[in-house]
Amino acid sequence: MNTPDENTAPAIDPRLSAEPNKDGADAAVAAARRVIAALLLTGDGSGVDMDAIADRLDEVADRLTEKAPTVEERLSRMWRAEGINRHDPVTGPENGLAPPLSLQGKDDGSIEGVVTLGLPYQGPPGHVHGGISALLLDHTLGVANHWGGTSGMTAELTLRYLRPTPLFEPLTVTGRQVSVDGSRIRTVGEISVSGRACVTAEGLFINKHLPRPS
Amino acid sequence: MNTPDENTAPAIDPRLSAEPNKDGADAAVAAARRVIAALLLTGDGSGVDMDAIADRLDEVADRLTEKAPTVEERLSRMWRAEGINRHDPVTGPENGLAPPLSLQGKDDGSIEGVVTLGLPYQGPPGHVHGGISALLLDHTLGVANHWGGTSGMTAELTLRYLRPTPLFEPLTVTGRQVSVDGSRIRTVGEISVSGRACVTAEGLFINKHLPRPS
Repeated sequence: MNTPDENTAPAIDPRLSAEPNKDGADAAVAAARRVIAALLLTGDGSGVDMDAIADRLDEVADRLTEKAPTVEERLSRMWRAEGINRHDPVTGPENGLAPPLSLQGKDDGSIEGVVTLGLPYQGPPGHVHGGISALLLDHTLGVANHWGGTSGMTAELTLRYLRPTPLFEPLTVTGRQVSVDGSRIRTVGEISVSGRACVTAEGLFINKHLPRPS
Repeated sequence: MNTPDENTAPAIDPRLSAEPNKDGADAAVAAARRVIAALLLTGDGSGVDMDAIADRLDEVADRLTEKAPTVEERLSRMWRAEGINRHDPVTGPENGLAPPLSLQGKDDGSIEGVVTLGLPYQGPPGHVHGGISALLLDHTLGVANHWGGTSGMTAELTLRYLRPTPLFEPLTVTGRQVSVDGSRIRTVGEISVSGRACVTAEGLFINKHLPRPS
């Protein structure tokens, strides 16, 4: 556990998710998230010239792609960076799919973040897609393992859906490493709203890692 | 089961995902997906003026938002439409988070789709995020229930990760309803590549539904 002993240990940075920059690519990604949400909200039949919108977005994509590295170069660069991932689809400030969720480590060994999800994350009417809850929890359990000190890859994940998870309300997402037994790591987590659990997760992780691209 | 008896039953449309339109909002959403992928591939330090990109994307979002209905109006409209969802984060042509996966029903009662995922869907280096696999499978199991004739909400979902799931390779995603016992529906599915299973899923669904917005 990374629980610091305040008398002897140096302070440990509890931020487990990358802080978005206010400019550069992170700001462009934040704007792209606005576009995704606005496209879904507005849709056809609204009087917006969607063909013109498509053209503008294609122009932006073309301009970015002109200067893009190869996938191999980019993979090498993104995994060479020290510290916390910036590119994942849950917390990554460089990833437009990410809400993003920002996770913090706590002194009791658990981690926590709060996130509010909009229309792109919808499953049942007005509620979060069960698979989106699974995505948030799989990632949070993985980060909880990092905070716990022994991380690995998901081997098994069980989700229990106790009640529908609402869109447009602050969701608390938590994770906690329960045990490490050899290479087997057990981790739990949940998504709750106003103190009531909506989805719980139990994960078995194996302490092995894919090689980082050279 | 929806398995048609060819002698007596009318042909059943096996398309279980909405077909994207080549223009309008669907084309704009397809372009927005290109932007998300290109932003992550290109990133800072590439020589692209990311602040200008952010401005252009914010302009697009503003233009869309000006004509947007309220969330309540939009929810009412999107759920009033007959047939297959167009807005979900897995198959929805109106949702920029969706890869999108396109699912087809088969005569044996199962369903199947093929999708290739890029960098935004990454977890371990060069491989699909475990939570993204969970998202695809939760959704596919739900659609398999629809094809099976009795659908419901996810109550429990167990995912087993057998081997890493690669990015940039065609993934086959399948689902099949196994049993319906009162309100309890059991459904299985998997993601495979070149005939080898990478992730399997078992779900318990309950035959109840949230009310559609009026």
